[in-house]
Amino acid sequence: MYPPIAFTLGDPLGIGPETIARLFALGEPELSSCFVVGDVAVMRRATSFLRTTVPLPVAQIVSLSDLPLLPPRCIPVWQVQGLSPDLAGLPMGMVDARAGRAAVTCIEQAVALALQGAVAAVVTAPIHKEALAAAGSPYPGHTEMLQALSASGDAVPPVRMMLANDELRVVLVTIHMSLRNAIEAVTFDSVLQTLRITHDSGTTWGQARPRIAVAGLNPHAGEGGLFGDEEKRVIAPAIKAARDEGIDAHGPFAPDTVFMRARRRRDQASEFDVVVAMTHDHGLIPVKYLGVEQGVNVTLGLPFIRTSPDHGTAFDIAGQGVADARSMLAAVRMARQMEMGVPES
Amino acid sequence: MYPPIAFTLGDPLGIGPETIARLFALGEPELSSCFVVGDVAVMRRATSFLRTTVPLPVAQIVSLSDLPLLPPRCIPVWQVQGLSPDLAGLPMGMVDARAGRAAVTCIEQAVALALQGAVAAVVTAPIHKEALAAAGSPYPGHTEMLQALSASGDAVPPVRMMLANDELRVVLVTIHMSLRNAIEAVTFDSVLQTLRITHDSGTTWGQARPRIAVAGLNPHAGEGGLFGDEEKRVIAPAIKAARDEGIDAHGPFAPDTVFMRARRRRDQASEFDVVVAMTHDHGLIPVKYLGVEQGVNVTLGLPFIRTSPDHGTAFDIAGQGVADARSMLAAVRMARQMEMGVPES
Repeated sequence: MYPPIAFTLGDPLGIGPETIARLFALGEPELSSCFVVGDVAVMRRATSFLRTTVPLPVAQIVSLSDLPLLPPRCIPVWQVQGLSPDLAGLPMGMVDARAGRAAVTCIEQAVALALQGAVAAVVTAPIHKEALAAAGSPYPGHTEMLQALSASGDAVPPVRMMLANDELRVVLVTIHMSLRNAIEAVTFDSVLQTLRITHDSGTTWGQARPRIAVAGLNPHAGEGGLFGDEEKRVIAPAIKAARDEGIDAHGPFAPDTVFMRARRRRDQASEFDVVVAMTHDHGLIPVKYLGVEQGVNVTLGLPFIRTSPDHGTAFDIAGQGVADARSMLAAVRMARQMEMGVPES
Repeated sequence: MYPPIAFTLGDPLGIGPETIARLFALGEPELSSCFVVGDVAVMRRATSFLRTTVPLPVAQIVSLSDLPLLPPRCIPVWQVQGLSPDLAGLPMGMVDARAGRAAVTCIEQAVALALQGAVAAVVTAPIHKEALAAAGSPYPGHTEMLQALSASGDAVPPVRMMLANDELRVVLVTIHMSLRNAIEAVTFDSVLQTLRITHDSGTTWGQARPRIAVAGLNPHAGEGGLFGDEEKRVIAPAIKAARDEGIDAHGPFAPDTVFMRARRRRDQASEFDVVVAMTHDHGLIPVKYLGVEQGVNVTLGLPFIRTSPDHGTAFDIAGQGVADARSMLAAVRMARQMEMGVPES
C-alpha cells in the first residue's frame, strides 16, 4: 500500500483538474492512494471534458484511511471548505479572482496535511499568476507560497528549484530574474547553500551522498580567468567549502559539456547524479530539450516532498480534454520515488 | 564525382592527422576527392598509429585533377612547402613552435586554394592555442585567422560560429567572452548582423529562406520586461529590422524551450531551421547535450565553406590511435551537404 499523496486542485479554470482526472482515468498504478485537495464539483466537471466512454466516479473522502477502500479509476476528493460555490460554473480559460482564491486555499490545506505528516508528498497542479494577484495573494507563485506556509516563525526555509527527467537532474542557484541580476546573485553563500540543499535532498532519490557537478557561469568555466572570474572568485571557493563539509561536489565545469556528462543513458553510466547550474536557462535548456512533457519540477528544501508538472495552466486549451498529462504523471512518479527514497534508474 | 575538399593538417602533434587517416581507413564514401593540405611524413606517421591490418598508402599529389584517379583508402596529401623537416619525428602531445607554425602554414595554403575556387570546402583539423602562440601567430584561433586570410584590403568579413548536429543548428551572437561582457555585446547591430549572416547561409543547407528562431537573453525572454529589458530594447527591434529585409526571423523566444521547438526529429516536423542564441552556452548546451562526437563547427560568413570537428587537439591521447573520428566525419559530411546545398534531413 502506497502512502497518500495529495494533488492540489490548481487553478480550477486551467488544465490542472482535467489533467489529474486523466491520470485516474488511465488507471496508472502510482495513482493508488492519491487524492485531490480540491472541489468535488470542479473535478466532476473535469471528468466530463475527457469524453471517456464510461463516466469517472468522483468520491468525496472524509478520512484518508478510506483511500485504500476506493476502487481504481475513482477520483478521491478532499473537499476544501469555504471555496466559492459557483466555481464549477465559471467559464474555463479565464482569469478569475474566485478561481485564484480557490487555488490558494487548496494549497494551504495540502501543506497543512503535509506538515501534519498525513501525506507523503504534495503534487501541485498549475496556478495562474494573474488569478493569484486578482485574489489578493501576496505571492508570485507556488514556491514563495510554499516557503511561507512552511516557515517556523519568521524563518522561511531556503529552497531551490530542481528540474528533472529520466536522464537528468538540475538544481538552480538563480531563477526568475534578469541574466544581469543572476550574475550578481551568484555568490559564495548562494552557491554553498544550493550545494547543501542538493546534498541533503540526495536521500530522496536514493543517494545519501550524491555526486554533484557544478556548472560554471562563464564560457569554458571562465577559461582560467580569461572569460570571467566568477569561477575563481566565487564558485570554486564555495565548492571547496562544501567538500570540507563532506559534500561530494565537483567543478566548476564548462557549462556546455557538463550536462552531457551527467546524462543517464541505458548504454552508459553517468559521471554525476545531479548538476547545479548558476542560471535558469543553463539549467533548463538541457532538461527541456527532450520535451517539456517529460520534465518535473521539484522544490528542494521544504519540510515535505513537493513536485509539479513542468507546464502552466494552458488557458488556451483548458476544458477541451486535450491537455497532455505526461508531465503530471511524471510528477506523481517522482513524488513516489522520492517518498520511497529509491534510485530512479 | 565530388568536388575536392581540403583537410588542413591541424597541429601535427595532436589527434588531427590520425583522425583524418581513420576516415580514409574506414573508406567512407564522402572521403572521395578529399585530400590533406599538409605533410606526407606526418600523415604516414599518423597511419602507423591506427594499427590497421593492411598499411594505408599516403600519396603526394601534384595536381587536384589526379584525385579521382587514386584508389579508395589512399590518403592524398598536398605537400606544403617550407615546413620544418623534423615534424614527423617530434614527440606527440607536446606544445611545439614548429608544429604550431606548420599548422598555420597549412591553413594559409588551404585558404589560398579555397579563394582560388580550387576546392569546394575546407575542413580544419584542431590546432593548439599555445602552439600557435609559440609559433608567433597573432591569432587566438582558427576563426580570426580565417577571417584575416579572407579579408579584402582592411575589410575583414564578419563571421559567426554555427554548431550543428543531425537535430539542431545554432548560430551564436557572442562566443569567447565572460557572460558579463556577452550581455554588453548583445546589441542591435550584432543581433541584426547575425540574422543576416544566418539568412545568407541558408542556401548552403538547402533553404533559401531559412526559418530563424531567435532565443532571448533572459529567463522567459524577459517575461515582458520583468526579468530584463534586452529583449524589448535590443533583440525585438533587430528581429523587426531583419524581417523588414525579408529575413524569416521569429522571436525572441524563451531560451529554455526554443531549442526543443527547433529540434528535427524523425517523428515530428521542427518549427524552425536554425536558432540564433545570444550566448555561447545557451547555444552550445543543447547541441552538445547529445554528445560532442556528433557536433560540427561551421564558420558562417567566410567566402568559402569551412567546417571543423567539435573537439580540440586532445594531446593526452594523441598518437595512441584511439581518438574518436565521428565528429571529423560529421564535419566532412556537413561540408559536402553545404557545398551541394541540399537539405540535411
